[in-house]
Amino acid sequence: MVKVGIVGGTGYTGVELLRLLAQHPQAEVAVITSRSEAGVKVADMYPNLRGHYDNLSFSVPDVATLGGCDVVFFATPHGVAHALAGELLDAGTRVIDLSADFRLQDAEEWAKWYGQPHGAPALLPEAVYGLPEVNRESIKGARLIAVPGCYPTAAQLGFIPLLEAGLADTSRLIADCKSGVSGAGRGAKVGSLFCEAGESMMAYSVKGHRHLPEISQGLRRAAGGDVGLTFVPHLTPMIRGIHATLYANVADKGVDLQALFEKRYANEPFVDVMPAGSHPETRSVRGANVCRIAVHRPQGGDLVVVLSVIDNLVKGASGQAVQNLNIMFGLEERLGLSHAALLP
Amino acid sequence: MVKVGIVGGTGYTGVELLRLLAQHPQAEVAVITSRSEAGVKVADMYPNLRGHYDNLSFSVPDVATLGGCDVVFFATPHGVAHALAGELLDAGTRVIDLSADFRLQDAEEWAKWYGQPHGAPALLPEAVYGLPEVNRESIKGARLIAVPGCYPTAAQLGFIPLLEAGLADTSRLIADCKSGVSGAGRGAKVGSLFCEAGESMMAYSVKGHRHLPEISQGLRRAAGGDVGLTFVPHLTPMIRGIHATLYANVADKGVDLQALFEKRYANEPFVDVMPAGSHPETRSVRGANVCRIAVHRPQGGDLVVVLSVIDNLVKGASGQAVQNLNIMFGLEERLGLSHAALLP
Amino acid sequence: MVKVGIVGGTGYTGVELLRLLAQHPQAEVAVITSRSEAGVKVADMYPNLRGHYDNLSFSVPDVATLGGCDVVFFATPHGVAHALAGELLDAGTRVIDLSADFRLQDAEEWAKWYGQPHGAPALLPEAVYGLPEVNRESIKGARLIAVPGCYPTAAQLGFIPLLEAGLADTSRLIADCKSGVSGAGRGAKVGSLFCEAGESMMAYSVKGHRHLPEISQGLRRAAGGDVGLTFVPHLTPMIRGIHATLYANVADKGVDLQALFEKRYANEPFVDVMPAGSHPETRSVRGANVCRIAVHRPQGGDLVVVLSVIDNLVKGASGQAVQNLNIMFGLEERLGLSHAALLP
Amino acid sequence: MVKVGIVGGTGYTGVELLRLLAQHPQAEVAVITSRSEAGVKVADMYPNLRGHYDNLSFSVPDVATLGGCDVVFFATPHGVAHALAGELLDAGTRVIDLSADFRLQDAEEWAKWYGQPHGAPALLPEAVYGLPEVNRESIKGARLIAVPGCYPTAAQLGFIPLLEAGLADTSRLIADCKSGVSGAGRGAKVGSLFCEAGESMMAYSVKGHRHLPEISQGLRRAAGGDVGLTFVPHLTPMIRGIHATLYANVADKGVDLQALFEKRYANEPFVDVMPAGSHPETRSVRGANVCRIAVHRPQGGDLVVVLSVIDNLVKGASGQAVQNLNIMFGLEERLGLSHAALLP
Repeated sequence: MVKVGIVGGTGYTGVELLRLLAQHPQAEVAVITSRSEAGVKVADMYPNLRGHYDNLSFSVPDVATLGGCDVVFFATPHGVAHALAGELLDAGTRVIDLSADFRLQDAEEWAKWYGQPHGAPALLPEAVYGLPEVNRESIKGARLIAVPGCYPTAAQLGFIPLLEAGLADTSRLIADCKSGVSGAGRGAKVGSLFCEAGESMMAYSVKGHRHLPEISQGLRRAAGGDVGLTFVPHLTPMIRGIHATLYANVADKGVDLQALFEKRYANEPFVDVMPAGSHPETRSVRGANVCRIAVHRPQGGDLVVVLSVIDNLVKGASGQAVQNLNIMFGLEERLGLSHAALLP
Repeated sequence: MVKVGIVGGTGYTGVELLRLLAQHPQAEVAVITSRSEAGVKVADMYPNLRGHYDNLSFSVPDVATLGGCDVVFFATPHGVAHALAGELLDAGTRVIDLSADFRLQDAEEWAKWYGQPHGAPALLPEAVYGLPEVNRESIKGARLIAVPGCYPTAAQLGFIPLLEAGLADTSRLIADCKSGVSGAGRGAKVGSLFCEAGESMMAYSVKGHRHLPEISQGLRRAAGGDVGLTFVPHLTPMIRGIHATLYANVADKGVDLQALFEKRYANEPFVDVMPAGSHPETRSVRGANVCRIAVHRPQGGDLVVVLSVIDNLVKGASGQAVQNLNIMFGLEERLGLSHAALLP
Repeated sequence: MVKVGIVGGTGYTGVELLRLLAQHPQAEVAVITSRSEAGVKVADMYPNLRGHYDNLSFSVPDVATLGGCDVVFFATPHGVAHALAGELLDAGTRVIDLSADFRLQDAEEWAKWYGQPHGAPALLPEAVYGLPEVNRESIKGARLIAVPGCYPTAAQLGFIPLLEAGLADTSRLIADCKSGVSGAGRGAKVGSLFCEAGESMMAYSVKGHRHLPEISQGLRRAAGGDVGLTFVPHLTPMIRGIHATLYANVADKGVDLQALFEKRYANEPFVDVMPAGSHPETRSVRGANVCRIAVHRPQGGDLVVVLSVIDNLVKGASGQAVQNLNIMFGLEERLGLSHAALLP
Repeated sequence: MVKVGIVGGTGYTGVELLRLLAQHPQAEVAVITSRSEAGVKVADMYPNLRGHYDNLSFSVPDVATLGGCDVVFFATPHGVAHALAGELLDAGTRVIDLSADFRLQDAEEWAKWYGQPHGAPALLPEAVYGLPEVNRESIKGARLIAVPGCYPTAAQLGFIPLLEAGLADTSRLIADCKSGVSGAGRGAKVGSLFCEAGESMMAYSVKGHRHLPEISQGLRRAAGGDVGLTFVPHLTPMIRGIHATLYANVADKGVDLQALFEKRYANEPFVDVMPAGSHPETRSVRGANVCRIAVHRPQGGDLVVVLSVIDNLVKGASGQAVQNLNIMFGLEERLGLSHAALLP
């Protein structure tokens, strides 16, 4: 039984970790922290967890207690894991960070996009980017995992087969992505209100979104060189879900794209390449740790369109974090993650 | 392993049965029927099930095949179970009917509300109303279960403690109930369109809804006599969920209502009496087989208000059906039903 | 041309006033105040107003400037109008207050429900409760209008015909009301987030909501005596709309309720008594200054059910405020308010 | 007073025409037809219109009656206007067709995309594509107007300034478009159900959508030559609104795109070029006849991103139709269309 700690469990990725771990047969949440909610029972804050964690309360974060866990998840704003991860690793506790703190390998680039110095550059060399479809072997031995962002997961899984095969013009990739509102977190912001985000659609951060360098970094690895990426995120009036619509020039019209994608993900438990001609719906992955992908070449032209959907809170965050836990601790990768999506 | 058949699996209760049974360790779906979709793979119709039922296709309903199952669920419009249940029972197959066919004990009343003669009145004496919180013992030995309707489940569970204790004025009970749109099924009706049911609220069937006699029947049993019930259902712009707001006069102000409810449901795995002062949200039971209840006496007056929420597709249909299966087959009652609700 | 000022125009009732007044041929917004947004153009904050108020900016509230208006609307939290109304009246400016400050005639009751002393009790005797269907004559000569709350508008208009006719048992009236989320305002509260209020339904403030004494006060007037009211508000996943489901005992079964309601509202431009058997939808009044009502007697019993719907931001706030302006200034009552609801 | 007829007024564009024309001071709806609803009062079908069209009922379409109108709108499925437009024109009645019947100038291309022969090719030469921002002069004298589709309006208005200026690489234009569900009409289709389209996002018709040739035709005109366009429409869980995200290569980095757009639309009453850096929301045009546009050049690269939003039922259909009416009949272009959008 893996003993789990969670730092910052009051947000949506926190409650989603709790929901998933409640069904996990080999993991147990021993401690969950929140400064603002210390002393409050988890089930009092999240009534969906009543009957599951009736004896678990939020506590003030404390390295000694957390250090008694086998692994600690960070479901925190950026900066927090920087401050605590080192001590936990020293205590022999592994760290799975759902925040952005260790996603970018370059501390200066991190500082530029997050507007503050990187707080733990010494840890960067050993941080593993926790996208199992790319880094499974490294994850196995890792002590520190940077769980990919939601947009980056959907975008990378959709682009990777084209880039690894060297098929796409890497100078002009486009990721037009649509996210549900839960991607903005549980913070009380006007823009996330029901009456602001409901019944409307808008692009945001077209000038530059923090997930842009993360996606680019992953695509560079896949392509083996520089890439030119335009990333336009949109806010969509739904709670969960990301729909990435990806555009790439593939001049070679002889290649069987469907076969390429199916082969790339043949052994992946959580990537579903749908039949040719499909249009994946985000609801088909709601609550499930799955990325469903379809690949199209409209009108037989040069431009290939990849459709990639995930639940931003599961494969885009907490589910992927649990998948990393399974891999790190030598467990069956599907453990606790095998349930079907909730539809309708 | 219980061998399961499903008749009419293309609707929302059908797909929900499949979702729940996919996680059930002691049940296996052997056959699923649909005349209109015969030959279609289940996972082609419901992509959330891809990876779970990849070899299961809809077939034309056939008593011989269904008769090879231990139990058959009917997830059909009313009338279908009337026609087939008898043959299946003769073949030694138990029947769990999610439709309204065997819910009313009086065939004439059924005929009046459903506008056609009852098709299997001879089976009524042995049909057990599958509300485990009331009929658990009868369910154990039953061959034929009538799974309660969604509104009736929420309303009965909320009223029962008051009525069984003889505390309420039974002549004037009110159930003001709000349902998500999935309660109207997957049929292509104008009133269920996104642009008709979205961003709006309305009452319907105030003159008389088919669930009225079912609720009344259950309340009569609990009260040990006649009841006067006003039932007003409302359509609410959400996919899943029922919120029943129940009103009853309780003249005795000395009674501890909170204690009464907690005691009544102390041993019930799927009824959660919330702390005094609570306001249960339907999302706290989304996807879960739970009824959450709170009891209030506003301004200390005579009128007691009970708030009762369920997911209409789970505790209000398919989850309750699986709960019945567990009881009938001597399995642990929580099997396949222990996951937490999806929130947010 | 009536010269209009608006205090506190950044919330939803403020922007709705602007939307409505933009179409009003006899009123002109001369000044709009907001401490937090002073200097910001109205159209920069609310892009739907681009092209309508391109030269109007928020300014710091200032009695001298406001006092130059013919009438000032308060679209503020409670307490603000208490502080400013007197000075404006002294300056000869009329006041239409959309907040709760002057709705209750009893200053002590106000203090009890709002948790602070009433700030302007001396003005209470001349404050007119701005429900035109009841107080039209008083509104004509009024200097200070208290615009009714949203729930109180829907509930009173539904109950009044029964109570004025002396038909209902006034000791046990029930108002089960459902509101869209905009009723909670534009404040950044967790409970109003898209991911909290969406896809869910809940009751709130069952113990006692501030609109309870306001509704009771209006019903007492109509009944000519004390009333016993239970009021249960619910939060509904839609932006606009209130659906009030009202219950009252009417022992006299000989009365023609449909005729009663039609007669009561025969000359009311903004109350629509729908045909017998109707179920009004909130969307049928979205954006429009209309209350639609239907009256039912289910199963011919003693209990009468009235369904009453409004748009909480229009007939429940800003539209009703403009209706009061029209009456106060001797304009045609429909001016600026005659457009149809937005459907779908 | 322009005497107006409407053919096929039961769908969403029909009710929207009625809503808009109810506020139009110079137009009057004399006849509205629907075979299926003949004899039904308009206000009985659309309760938002109660009080506006109380004496107007649907009638069986009849050329003699329609021919007595000054202008007839077709709010019908494709094919209907083919059959009737000629006779009406012969009778001296002008025709504004909201369907696709006369949008493509090439009858063979029409036949290919709509799967049936063009029914009135002889009328094509005089049909004017009713995009006032392009064809205002031709509209003035026109007898037969083809109102542009919803996606084509949003996409063309966004691309046109770049193409007319010869700035974009026309060989690789991308229109990633998101539509609310009302774009699918009021037909009772499973895919348009609340429980299917709600809380989900999907692309559709990636292989080829009927609006592709219409957009391409318009872009060819603007570019003065062939264009290569990839068009990916998406279904979004909102009732109204289109958000077009447009991508074009503009190698010339010296050009002031903001100035270009502002100049192109300086005199357009219904195109709003937002300030640099803006992200238009679809709700900012809800119910209003406006297209709001913002232009971006992310990271200063070659790829220009244009964001263009409309209400698909207004500027994307019925509002644009009324705008055409105003132009055709020499009325002020804003007549009946000057109200602000409904927000929130």
